[in-house]
Amino acid sequence: MREAATTFFRELQISICDALEEIDGGAPFEEDTWTRKEGGGGHTRILSGGDVFESAGVNWSEVFGSLTGPLYDHLPGNGDSFHATGVSLVLHPKSPMIPTVHANFRAISRGETSWFGGGADLTPYYPYHEDVLHFHQTFKDACDRHDPAWYANFKAWCDSYFYLPHRDETRGVGGLFFDYLGLRKDQLSPRAAANCVHSPENTPTAEAAFEFQKDAGTSFINAYLPIVARRKDESWGEKERNFQLIRRGRYVEFNLLYDRGTTFGLQTGGRTESILMSLPRNVRWEYNYMPPEGSRERELWDYLHPRDWLGESTS
Amino acid sequence: MREAATTFFRELQISICDALEEIDGGAPFEEDTWTRKEGGGGHTRILSGGDVFESAGVNWSEVFGSLTGPLYDHLPGNGDSFHATGVSLVLHPKSPMIPTVHANFRAISRGETSWFGGGADLTPYYPYHEDVLHFHQTFKDACDRHDPAWYANFKAWCDSYFYLPHRDETRGVGGLFFDYLGLRKDQLSPRAAANCVHSPENTPTAEAAFEFQKDAGTSFINAYLPIVARRKDESWGEKERNFQLIRRGRYVEFNLLYDRGTTFGLQTGGRTESILMSLPRNVRWEYNYMPPEGSRERELWDYLHPRDWLGESTS
Repeated sequence: MREAATTFFRELQISICDALEEIDGGAPFEEDTWTRKEGGGGHTRILSGGDVFESAGVNWSEVFGSLTGPLYDHLPGNGDSFHATGVSLVLHPKSPMIPTVHANFRAISRGETSWFGGGADLTPYYPYHEDVLHFHQTFKDACDRHDPAWYANFKAWCDSYFYLPHRDETRGVGGLFFDYLGLRKDQLSPRAAANCVHSPENTPTAEAAFEFQKDAGTSFINAYLPIVARRKDESWGEKERNFQLIRRGRYVEFNLLYDRGTTFGLQTGGRTESILMSLPRNVRWEYNYMPPEGSRERELWDYLHPRDWLGESTS
Repeated sequence: MREAATTFFRELQISICDALEEIDGGAPFEEDTWTRKEGGGGHTRILSGGDVFESAGVNWSEVFGSLTGPLYDHLPGNGDSFHATGVSLVLHPKSPMIPTVHANFRAISRGETSWFGGGADLTPYYPYHEDVLHFHQTFKDACDRHDPAWYANFKAWCDSYFYLPHRDETRGVGGLFFDYLGLRKDQLSPRAAANCVHSPENTPTAEAAFEFQKDAGTSFINAYLPIVARRKDESWGEKERNFQLIRRGRYVEFNLLYDRGTTFGLQTGGRTESILMSLPRNVRWEYNYMPPEGSRERELWDYLHPRDWLGESTS
């Protein structure tokens, strides 16, 4: 399964990049191949200065080796070797009308124990309700094909993870976040169990978790590209650009202050450029910025606290 | 002394802002007054879109109240109340030829125990050796008037503090960084003693430390303004601006990933806008950016590892 997951993620990277290049039309992805001294490596694909995407990074990696330090203590499973493979991506469109999106799908093994984690979350600049519904519905459908309890759990986990306490706002409108999928409750460390909002009593086998991972991963394009297609020709100007740059500042704040993938990756000697490819190209901060009451920009704040998007849409 | 320090810092804020407004000539500081629910408050002064400064923040605050949580355990002294006052500033010039600068001067008391901390560090974009020498020499002179051992100690502390491990580079060319000045060794907690590079055996009284703090604080204008005056009319274009924006990205990385004032301040409910006024207005990230060998931009990298600036200049 380790090999099957590695191959699946590389193919997923390529198919996502193909689809993004096609909708962009202005610039191709360039691939940067790197190796990790302690074992493994990756292909980082970057599209920069496209017609649709100001910057887009889609990283695939397969890393393995000996477990040391805190990972030895905290990672589920037994043994002193690990294997991790996955895809992570962050897309920053040029147009403020198109949301930024992040997704990550990964498989981790320690000894004979394997599990899956990842998710996807949307960060709009302008509040288009139908875009949020489409994103959530696509991933809910993927969840429902495997376990009807998962969407609500993984959505809640996403809301609590992508949160900026110093701003009292979420990074965006959420999506899915999951981890340790494929492990039984008795295989989780106390720390992992405390972080886990899915029901580990009712967990799938690693094989069933991989089937879900494939479904969620291939759903990404269906969740995001229709939103790009719908918004890419909408007009915008200096005011909308300024708002986008300032909101991107909050994205940077989250990633550098709170995102565990970023901070842990940098602390443990991960590849800096592949980790920080998540940061937008151009960013702005303004002291005490708040758009005026009643403006379209201000309406975004209604989107920055957890909401039951799909419940609202059907009630 | 608590009252004298509070007054001194407020006057220092005003005199620094007056001098900066005069050299800027394009925009005044605006003052934003805030109060802290648990006790105290501050005046945050912001100059934005000036002729010399793209953004400049000079914050004064006086906060006090009950000690809770980790501060109760780790702050030197006894008792459950504290008082902290000081000035902190970050100036981001528009011209890439003028360095960014940060300074902070503070007095903290717990019960009957008082100490001083702070420092100043320079972050150039273009490597002007004489500017670095002037900045260091001005603060060395201030140190030497009080204790000839301090400059070397506080410079070393600054070099080790303003360091980005994931980039293996310093934030800039350093300056001074000091803390716990006025405490005897037996008054330091084990954690504080471990962080302390000045010789706590040979520490000044709190009164003598305050005299040094006044000298260092009033030296700031002399350390920085002559550099601004020398560089502000140098020409620059799109290439230099792009370089500045990318280097500002490193500044943001340091402040959000590593700066304890920032991360601790945000975690403990400090005022977000006064803390994040340190971030530049416009910032850029580019994947795998490195200026070409032999370029003036590339020469900056020689400045981004600790150097004995004044030793070199006199040898």
